[in-house]
Amino acid sequence: MAKKILIVGGVAGGASAAARLRRLDETAEIILFEKGPHISYSNCALPYSLSGIVTDPDSLILMTAERFWSQHRIEVRTASEVTEILRAEKKVRVHEAGGRVYEESYDALILSPGAEPIVPPIPGADAPQVFTLKDPEDAAAIRAALDGKEAPKAAVIGGGFIGVEAAVNLAARAEVTLIEAADQILTPFDRDMAQILQKELLDHGVRLVLKDGIAAVQDGAVRLASGRRIPADLVVMAIGVRPRTSLARAAGLAIGESGAIAVDADGRTSDPAIYAVGDAAEVALPLKRAAGRLSLAFPAQKEARRAADAICGRTSANRGYLGSFGIEVFGLRSAATGLNERDIAAQHIPHETAYVIPFDRVSLMPGASPLHLKVHFEVPTGRLLGAQAVGQGAPDRRIDVIAALIAKGGTLEDMADVDLCYAPPFATAKDAVHLAGLVGLNLLHGEFRQVPASVVRRLVETGAYIADVREPGEYAAGHIRGAVNLPLSELRDRLGELPADRPIYVHCRSGQRSYYACRILAAHGFREVYNIAGSYLALCLFEYAEDQLTGRAPIVTAYNFN
Amino acid sequence: MAKKILIVGGVAGGASAAARLRRLDETAEIILFEKGPHISYSNCALPYSLSGIVTDPDSLILMTAERFWSQHRIEVRTASEVTEILRAEKKVRVHEAGGRVYEESYDALILSPGAEPIVPPIPGADAPQVFTLKDPEDAAAIRAALDGKEAPKAAVIGGGFIGVEAAVNLAARAEVTLIEAADQILTPFDRDMAQILQKELLDHGVRLVLKDGIAAVQDGAVRLASGRRIPADLVVMAIGVRPRTSLARAAGLAIGESGAIAVDADGRTSDPAIYAVGDAAEVALPLKRAAGRLSLAFPAQKEARRAADAICGRTSANRGYLGSFGIEVFGLRSAATGLNERDIAAQHIPHETAYVIPFDRVSLMPGASPLHLKVHFEVPTGRLLGAQAVGQGAPDRRIDVIAALIAKGGTLEDMADVDLCYAPPFATAKDAVHLAGLVGLNLLHGEFRQVPASVVRRLVETGAYIADVREPGEYAAGHIRGAVNLPLSELRDRLGELPADRPIYVHCRSGQRSYYACRILAAHGFREVYNIAGSYLALCLFEYAEDQLTGRAPIVTAYNFN
Repeated sequence: MAKKILIVGGVAGGASAAARLRRLDETAEIILFEKGPHISYSNCALPYSLSGIVTDPDSLILMTAERFWSQHRIEVRTASEVTEILRAEKKVRVHEAGGRVYEESYDALILSPGAEPIVPPIPGADAPQVFTLKDPEDAAAIRAALDGKEAPKAAVIGGGFIGVEAAVNLAARAEVTLIEAADQILTPFDRDMAQILQKELLDHGVRLVLKDGIAAVQDGAVRLASGRRIPADLVVMAIGVRPRTSLARAAGLAIGESGAIAVDADGRTSDPAIYAVGDAAEVALPLKRAAGRLSLAFPAQKEARRAADAICGRTSANRGYLGSFGIEVFGLRSAATGLNERDIAAQHIPHETAYVIPFDRVSLMPGASPLHLKVHFEVPTGRLLGAQAVGQGAPDRRIDVIAALIAKGGTLEDMADVDLCYAPPFATAKDAVHLAGLVGLNLLHGEFRQVPASVVRRLVETGAYIADVREPGEYAAGHIRGAVNLPLSELRDRLGELPADRPIYVHCRSGQRSYYACRILAAHGFREVYNIAGSYLALCLFEYAEDQLTGRAPIVTAYNFN
Repeated sequence: MAKKILIVGGVAGGASAAARLRRLDETAEIILFEKGPHISYSNCALPYSLSGIVTDPDSLILMTAERFWSQHRIEVRTASEVTEILRAEKKVRVHEAGGRVYEESYDALILSPGAEPIVPPIPGADAPQVFTLKDPEDAAAIRAALDGKEAPKAAVIGGGFIGVEAAVNLAARAEVTLIEAADQILTPFDRDMAQILQKELLDHGVRLVLKDGIAAVQDGAVRLASGRRIPADLVVMAIGVRPRTSLARAAGLAIGESGAIAVDADGRTSDPAIYAVGDAAEVALPLKRAAGRLSLAFPAQKEARRAADAICGRTSANRGYLGSFGIEVFGLRSAATGLNERDIAAQHIPHETAYVIPFDRVSLMPGASPLHLKVHFEVPTGRLLGAQAVGQGAPDRRIDVIAALIAKGGTLEDMADVDLCYAPPFATAKDAVHLAGLVGLNLLHGEFRQVPASVVRRLVETGAYIADVREPGEYAAGHIRGAVNLPLSELRDRLGELPADRPIYVHCRSGQRSYYACRILAAHGFREVYNIAGSYLALCLFEYAEDQLTGRAPIVTAYNFN
């Protein structure tokens, strides 16, 4: 007899699961219930409809109920909310928008309810100028609120993926303030990488408020916890999302520690006839040695496929996810994979970090620009833990390579050895991935020591000895206050000028010449020599946004960002 | 006592080896001999100085002798040719351009003589309008030959990397004919991928001559083996390169089967005091189970570092190379890694090929374009053997991910599972890599069968049954002659129209809907159903260039390239 499979929710995996089910079983009866009007839309592309980068908002709708039926014989019931799971009877109760209530039986049930935006319970949260950005209707409402306004003011609450993408896209049509309670935007990134992106926001006119929460929306403004008032014709709430688990909870299905629905390796909940996929379900995070939530599209699609496979008797190893992600912030792309500094600290993993800033392609080629690549690895194994990258070029490419290596248990040696494709218009023979691998190996084997650029301010304040090994012209164009200019090309002749009894902190533009200098100094008997990771380029980028936000005095005579 | 290390040749690895030696040994005496005037230049970027993409030809020179001394204490002797190795005495004989001849002793010797362009011994090969493209002087001579000419005509002989890059860059300033003796350009690519690039050359006005060799240069023209005459104000010889091994041969060092200098895992020649690196030395090619030549920059740099390490007593595993490469052809990037179809055939490896053409980023985003990705895998293991990609987007990124997986012994499952970074402006949640992995798994497990687009012409000629499952509007805009339009959305209702007793060949635009159709037909009892890999998009691209070159009648009513 033909199987009958019900699916609750289309967007976050439901439609993928349905289509996969049909491919595996031509005879199954498949019914998809969706509370809203659409069975599938590109929620990742929603922010881009605010700026008009996505020119036709209707194109956000990826699939219609009619086409799903004609192509896949999948019955879609929109405006139909599943309100209860009657597990003992293997039935669900459905409320139609029109008022009709009925029950539908199932052999297997897939829950894909997704997640909903968190709106804090503050005064004015329900005001008409307050929006979320979860579906095409939200996006349309925001666009409508902007239409016809002269230089509208927008406040975006929350510096996560959706908040930043909303801010970037709203900036095309409004004066935008981005408000984040933490001390950085995009907390999946380490703070230094986030600072580069914060500078990009500032450079494009987005006002940034960090370390401040929202207290109320009133009198055409957002009032912050600090008392500060941000005028706003419209407010986009992007604090975060909460998995929709009420249906599962009411049915007594197990909920994981993360607050999402707990599932086994096949996507099965604590009831063997019920599966859960998408943002409402947990996924395995092997690097974190835990299950958890990942509101990302790839895991949603993949787990939807897995659930469909399992229902049809097919299983495969569930390797879990690294949590790779990417985001474009105006002219910068950024991406990351694996563990960040906070994750590593939480697990107390002994580790070190390689940070390199090579050009993303042959420096002679048009468009060549610095690529920031940071790689965390375990000590002493050299096992890769995570990586982050930012640049105008293709940081995503480097992160993807490292993600592939991490997935295969890769080490720094794998990074140094990986045979990547190269042509001058889009790469260098010794790629950022190779360079970071080699720097990591040097750190692992104690061939030089380093300090992060974030400590330089304290070094300056405490009068540490900082040697700037760039050429005099570079030094003159901007340098760290108090740093001594000792060009690499003169270093061996001027060793006598260096202090023998104090730590020496060395930097150049991006860290390569200062690495050479560190080796020279070590070879000549200087014991405590530290390379400043990322050198002047990283330092300027990290200091800049903080200097702008706080109004503090810069520690450099002039910034250099290239 | 300080070691004395001599290096012969700067460009193809010599300068890298020297710099690495200095980092490992501050006291060693390091002398680099270079016959020419430069110790290091960007030979990969040379073609780009012909078009002016590299605006300042002087920038091609990466390092000067003065800077090498001041920064690294490496003595460079340019215009100094090493003419003999006196192995018994551990000395080399040096001829200076000025006439002086002297001997220099060594503890270790690194040979990095590179390779030289092959110029066929034909009449006119030494004519003043005949050039090679091996160094900045060659590039300057070609630019000088173009200067002041009204619509000059250029013939490029050889469709390898240098030939194609020369043709692309010369096209900015001349009417270019590219002449290749084989039946495709860029033979490291499979023929179908090369055909896409051939179309790109034709689209940009480069004339293409295949399957014809050069017989003579005379009377302002190139005369071909076929008798055809190609008018040419200048001729660039880019047939290939030959490793410079005369010094090594004369010294009795072992030469490998490939014709390059044989080395062990540490880069050591048959004389334990002599190392060889760069284009003149063999490298390990594990996928080919052999040593061989790779005229590529990454292996040259990597092996140079390895030789320097070995001289300083450091060794590491030599995993060899996949031979990953990339090349940009006007608006298309292309890249490949591992084995191609010919390599696989030569080794008789049982294999299959997944071919997908998804969009390179979310299709709603500006600049979204089809990405051609082809992956060869072993049957029945699913082990990845090689991959090739072409597109306007970032094929290099997908190839690099697959290269990383191949390096770690990866399989199709690894491709399907790899957790890549995603954001709508530069990727899709289900990436080309995932899709190709899934298609490969389906092929591996016999879930559908396919034929390559290259057989479609024969299918048409023999009256095979071809079902086009695109929508009627797509069919009307261009279709295979004789194909029957059976839209996927109508397929289940029109099963009776399909022949039960003949093979059915199914296609759509790129292969996805036709895959669905294959599953539907199989589920309804049709036994011999084949998906046409790459479908209409691949077919049109492959047919087009051949149709143009041969003047034969197209098998499609209209081409569709998007």
